[in-house]
Amino acid sequence: MNALLLVAHGSRRPQSNNEVLLLTQKLKNHCSQQYPIIHGAFLELADPTIPDGIQQCITDGATTVVVLPYFLNSGSHVTQDVPAIIETAQSSYPMIDIKLAQHLGASEMMLELLISSANQAL
Amino acid sequence: MNALLLVAHGSRRPQSNNEVLLLTQKLKNHCSQQYPIIHGAFLELADPTIPDGIQQCITDGATTVVVLPYFLNSGSHVTQDVPAIIETAQSSYPMIDIKLAQHLGASEMMLELLISSANQAL
Repeated sequence: MNALLLVAHGSRRPQSNNEVLLLTQKLKNHCSQQYPIIHGAFLELADPTIPDGIQQCITDGATTVVVLPYFLNSGSHVTQDVPAIIETAQSSYPMIDIKLAQHLGASEMMLELLISSANQAL
Repeated sequence: MNALLLVAHGSRRPQSNNEVLLLTQKLKNHCSQQYPIIHGAFLELADPTIPDGIQQCITDGATTVVVLPYFLNSGSHVTQDVPAIIETAQSSYPMIDIKLAQHLGASEMMLELLISSANQAL
């Protein structure tokens, strides 16, 4: 069973964290057939942590967990910190397939999304 | 003539700023017919500033400038800082139509983009 874990940086501003969790809820409403298990997690400054989020996915019955970094830039969080956490989690759960998706900013759909947003303002 | 100004926060890490400018270049390659003028700008920590970016669009011949905030969360930068800069710029250039698009995180296409990225990892 596939799980999707949306991972954001985390903020000291609760409203920003809530926006991420709200987006997670929208994902649940939008694609529960493809991903019966969907959770949100934060790299730092907020809970749940990424390991806690992965554990929750597995507790819910996931056999595959796709970790999707909700980050714009490919800084050290995306290139080092999140992959290191995933590697540790994979070692802890060898029977589970934990996959790391490309970060948000690298999506091939980004141009289309930006143009769509711009056009709506015209 | 329509111009598109992609506005990011700006970072002390040059590579992050370069990623935004690279994205701006991709936008130029992708939609120069809809937006013959496309530039990138930064709220802080990097150049060009948003006022400089707007001025460049106008110098290039823009009659309408769509400012698109490349921000995930609707924090004070999106709700206060960028709108205040746009308001000041609009006062400075009353003959130009300066429009503020919704920020990236509010895009209706975000769910579709996230699912697409997740699916590519499977």
